[in-house]
Amino acid sequence: MVRMSDLQASTAAGQRGPADHSIRDQIIAAADEHFSRYGYGKTTVADLAKTIGFSKAYIYKFFESKQAIGETICAKCLGSVTAAVQEALVESKSATEKLRRLLKTIAIVTTEIAFSDQKIYEIAAYSCAEKWSSATNYIEEIGGIVTDIILEGRASGEFERKTPIDEAVRAIMMVFQPFMNPVMLQYNLDAVPEGANEVASLVLRSLAP
Amino acid sequence: MVRMSDLQASTAAGQRGPADHSIRDQIIAAADEHFSRYGYGKTTVADLAKTIGFSKAYIYKFFESKQAIGETICAKCLGSVTAAVQEALVESKSATEKLRRLLKTIAIVTTEIAFSDQKIYEIAAYSCAEKWSSATNYIEEIGGIVTDIILEGRASGEFERKTPIDEAVRAIMMVFQPFMNPVMLQYNLDAVPEGANEVASLVLRSLAP
Repeated sequence: MVRMSDLQASTAAGQRGPADHSIRDQIIAAADEHFSRYGYGKTTVADLAKTIGFSKAYIYKFFESKQAIGETICAKCLGSVTAAVQEALVESKSATEKLRRLLKTIAIVTTEIAFSDQKIYEIAAYSCAEKWSSATNYIEEIGGIVTDIILEGRASGEFERKTPIDEAVRAIMMVFQPFMNPVMLQYNLDAVPEGANEVASLVLRSLAP
Repeated sequence: MVRMSDLQASTAAGQRGPADHSIRDQIIAAADEHFSRYGYGKTTVADLAKTIGFSKAYIYKFFESKQAIGETICAKCLGSVTAAVQEALVESKSATEKLRRLLKTIAIVTTEIAFSDQKIYEIAAYSCAEKWSSATNYIEEIGGIVTDIILEGRASGEFERKTPIDEAVRAIMMVFQPFMNPVMLQYNLDAVPEGANEVASLVLRSLAP
């Protein structure tokens, strides 16, 4: 579920110290494993140090806090959602199809990542509650993709042009929350993918010229 | 915030025993107070019994479980949201205005009830997670009001008639979640009422004939 090969590409707040990727990766892999088994909330940096066989001080050379480790794992998971979205959009012919695929992909991939493993979902809950940069960056990135799709649909004549673009994007990002925010998604797992598709249809009706 | 005068009107699963409203009310009032201070999760029926000065057995004559007490409190809070919605709709002239007022009222009243008091919010979280009848009844009731508004708007020519009514209502109830579900609303408090109004506008654009 968590693809370690993606790790080098992701950076998050709170990383520091030598650019030694293999040790950084080793800490993240061990933390990921540990959080998955025991939960993020209950794990301390001392627990991680003990598991890996490093000193606490050595871990702090690479990450300034447990949250910094959590954010790196979170950024990596969210990075894989964004990557899946971008991949899904490549094949789309129209803005209409892109918007539909975007929400469907987010709903399906977030379900896979967050709920294949209840304990990893706990990190997502922390990232939302505490507005980690990993979560806010992701929302910004998806918001950017939605903006591009709407601009494309306006240019092609698929979508109306009266609503201020900022308002349209803000409202769409809000109504995507039941399938985008893992804390909300937990109540809507039965509605993936059909309910997500119905929300996409509602949004597309709202965008009709 | 919690209006005890509304109590007699509300019934929830798990109530039983003599129809002695004043004792039932006394238990609920004490439980409400206790949950608000110490949280629902951490309170036991034994704690409540101790606080009220009743025996545990006596409380069990009126409620079959702690959850039954929680559901009664939850039903009462949600009943006050529904009542506020119905009051707000009386003055509305059109289906368009009704839909806007419905979401705005839900967002504002839920914010007031759930977040004026963090501990009462905890009951709401349990009611969602465990699908208490108090919560499912409320969703059904609001869904019914939304259906009536859409039918009215279709009859008056304000709204389109092509989308199957069930799908339209299901999708609208889904996109209302960020402001309706207290677990979700906690992340969107900054967006009340402006963000709720933008979502209402999006929904109204989706309903345009």
